[in-house]
Amino acid sequence: MTREISSERFRDRFDRFNEIGATDRGGVNRPSLSDANRRARDKLVEWFEEAGLTVTVDEVGNIFGRREGKDDDLTPVLVGSHVDSQYNGGRYDGVIGVLGALEGIETLNDIGVETERPIEAVSWSNEEGVRFQPDMLGSGVFAGTFETEFAYDLEDKEGKTFGEELKRIGYRGDAPCEPRDLHSYFELHVEQGPTLEDAGLSVGVVEGVYGFIWFDAAFTGSADHAGPTPMHLRHDALMATSDVVEAVRRIAGTEGEDLVGTVGSLDVSPNSINVIPERVDFTVDFRSYDDETVDRAADSVRTEIDHAAAREGVEGEYEQIMRIDSQSFDGDCVETVAAAADALDAEHTRLVSGAGHDASYLNGVCPTAMVFVPSVSGVSHTEDEFTEWEDAVTGANVLFNAVLEKASEPADWDGAGATNA
Amino acid sequence: MTREISSERFRDRFDRFNEIGATDRGGVNRPSLSDANRRARDKLVEWFEEAGLTVTVDEVGNIFGRREGKDDDLTPVLVGSHVDSQYNGGRYDGVIGVLGALEGIETLNDIGVETERPIEAVSWSNEEGVRFQPDMLGSGVFAGTFETEFAYDLEDKEGKTFGEELKRIGYRGDAPCEPRDLHSYFELHVEQGPTLEDAGLSVGVVEGVYGFIWFDAAFTGSADHAGPTPMHLRHDALMATSDVVEAVRRIAGTEGEDLVGTVGSLDVSPNSINVIPERVDFTVDFRSYDDETVDRAADSVRTEIDHAAAREGVEGEYEQIMRIDSQSFDGDCVETVAAAADALDAEHTRLVSGAGHDASYLNGVCPTAMVFVPSVSGVSHTEDEFTEWEDAVTGANVLFNAVLEKASEPADWDGAGATNA
Repeated sequence: MTREISSERFRDRFDRFNEIGATDRGGVNRPSLSDANRRARDKLVEWFEEAGLTVTVDEVGNIFGRREGKDDDLTPVLVGSHVDSQYNGGRYDGVIGVLGALEGIETLNDIGVETERPIEAVSWSNEEGVRFQPDMLGSGVFAGTFETEFAYDLEDKEGKTFGEELKRIGYRGDAPCEPRDLHSYFELHVEQGPTLEDAGLSVGVVEGVYGFIWFDAAFTGSADHAGPTPMHLRHDALMATSDVVEAVRRIAGTEGEDLVGTVGSLDVSPNSINVIPERVDFTVDFRSYDDETVDRAADSVRTEIDHAAAREGVEGEYEQIMRIDSQSFDGDCVETVAAAADALDAEHTRLVSGAGHDASYLNGVCPTAMVFVPSVSGVSHTEDEFTEWEDAVTGANVLFNAVLEKASEPADWDGAGATNA
Repeated sequence: MTREISSERFRDRFDRFNEIGATDRGGVNRPSLSDANRRARDKLVEWFEEAGLTVTVDEVGNIFGRREGKDDDLTPVLVGSHVDSQYNGGRYDGVIGVLGALEGIETLNDIGVETERPIEAVSWSNEEGVRFQPDMLGSGVFAGTFETEFAYDLEDKEGKTFGEELKRIGYRGDAPCEPRDLHSYFELHVEQGPTLEDAGLSVGVVEGVYGFIWFDAAFTGSADHAGPTPMHLRHDALMATSDVVEAVRRIAGTEGEDLVGTVGSLDVSPNSINVIPERVDFTVDFRSYDDETVDRAADSVRTEIDHAAAREGVEGEYEQIMRIDSQSFDGDCVETVAAAADALDAEHTRLVSGAGHDASYLNGVCPTAMVFVPSVSGVSHTEDEFTEWEDAVTGANVLFNAVLEKASEPADWDGAGATNA
């Protein structure tokens, strides 16, 4: 038997929540630890308390709202996402996951269901990472990947620290932020890619997350005058970089079927119309669900950087700044999501996320799975981000029924549920 | 018979002059209309007056110092360059041309030679164009290419105008800035390229200046997430731009022997490691001594931009922002420079300048030629700019003897000398 949330209440809360930090062009501007982010957190805590949840704020600002179970000593099912945004970002990213979790709990309250296990809604701190890097910080500390002090010492461009700013907005809580026993974790999120929309589907059952590697790279040549310097005597850092940009696409097309590669950031110096570029700093991002594919792509681009440097007579350098292995979500949690989608007659497919999520870190703490809903035109991280409301509701219903299923599992499931921890 | 300047006085003045706006790394920072530029102008006027010259400042700040001839009604020989610098630029660029002109006049004073014609030393206003574009502004107004009001209305990045700033530093003079009858113009300058050093020569006899064309160009695609967006659904503005950067080198290698092409400036938006570049703004610079070659290169790069846009599914655009035809200097003036170099046993070659100079504009007003001295490693527009002092002296001696030769031409040469006006 499936149950369904209230589409109207979910929508009403979604609209009221997104009045906070609303932009003229229809998005929201609530970067982590901003005043708008504080007001969003305040509103969420207010609604958590109105729903009868026990609110806990941990030392990095993750906000938990707990609904008791019949046996409150059983491990809880955790469900949520984040409410910080990109600068001038979209209204759906993160928000539907947190408000979807709350809406499920409100529905349980409405119908008077007491689950075996506690259910906790969560809003993770600093998922977007636009002001304080790295992103997914709150879930990363929770999973034990980062220390709390590491998070506190992070500085924004003005030199303000995460710890100070967290205290300033009143969300530096007392609860320790560390791994604890959880039955399972579920997260509803927008896809941020075009797959579901292209296939005409409402829901994605997410089986895992791509692994990825990031490089900072640079070429240094000579800043000669663009007029009197013959082509054969040039050492043009941008020419070498363009070779690598082309190589990144070639590598993506040859090293693995699902491999994607991007040069997203590129800065030229001195960046003057009549001066040969002396130095170019750029980034490389490769992602695949197959970690060996990512490794092969990384080896290839290192070779391409070396070769481009040798051809152009410039100095090439690169530094690996991030490497995250792919994540395979818990098979049982994934099947629970798929079963909920089946039961709701939600048109769905199984897919793998190209983007990282808080669920990537939670997957190291407890059995985890995700529910995706379509992003129109695959667009995210901009004010144009949009999801059909019908799809958001379908996704929230899949989430709700999966969580309800898991929260109904009795004590002797704890062992099985914890195998992935 | 050749005469020679005083290497010691020239060097002493060069060192004292470059104390003004000196940088820690051995360069100078005297951008046009800065306080340092004012002090440099003040020093120059002081030295012009000490040398007995009649100083005139025109309405755009060009500074002339006139030494009378036997017949002061004859058209003068003009000789000079500029004393403004790039931001943190080199000590030789422009300075040796102006101080070389002054040193020649001092030498005439020393040896008591009265020339047939007047000789005027000149320091052109705002040659570098780093704060107020376009560059070569003072000579451009003098040649009639720009109106005085156009120069006055130019704004720097802070919104200050050229006219206001020129008044502020006290160099908005009364003399009209417009073409007038001149016998000829000579300019000594550093090469800013590697040709003379590569050939082991002290002097270049400059026969002309490359023509050039400048484009502002851009591609606009889609700023999708670098993870979930498959390669075949991307519209990556940087990928299209890299195609064009490669094409610029290919075009330079195929369309003409002396053709050079450069993408010097490139800005990516949003410029984030995990976002596919939505927009890239970039520039294209092509130069050749053959104007048809420049036109063919321009046609080719327009086609390449269109094709790259079509391949990548992005919008491509380009705007021609500058087109200057190549300049051939006056044959008689060029031979006068070559003869002076021969007479001084200066090892020299004839060459064409890839960079623009004030002489490019003067070539439209009167018979013109230039003298180049080597730039070590071809480096200019940086604090590392360097010329062996021996070469600077040789160049100044070639300049002096060419100017002396021309200033000795009697009245009936005026007609012949003016044919290129």
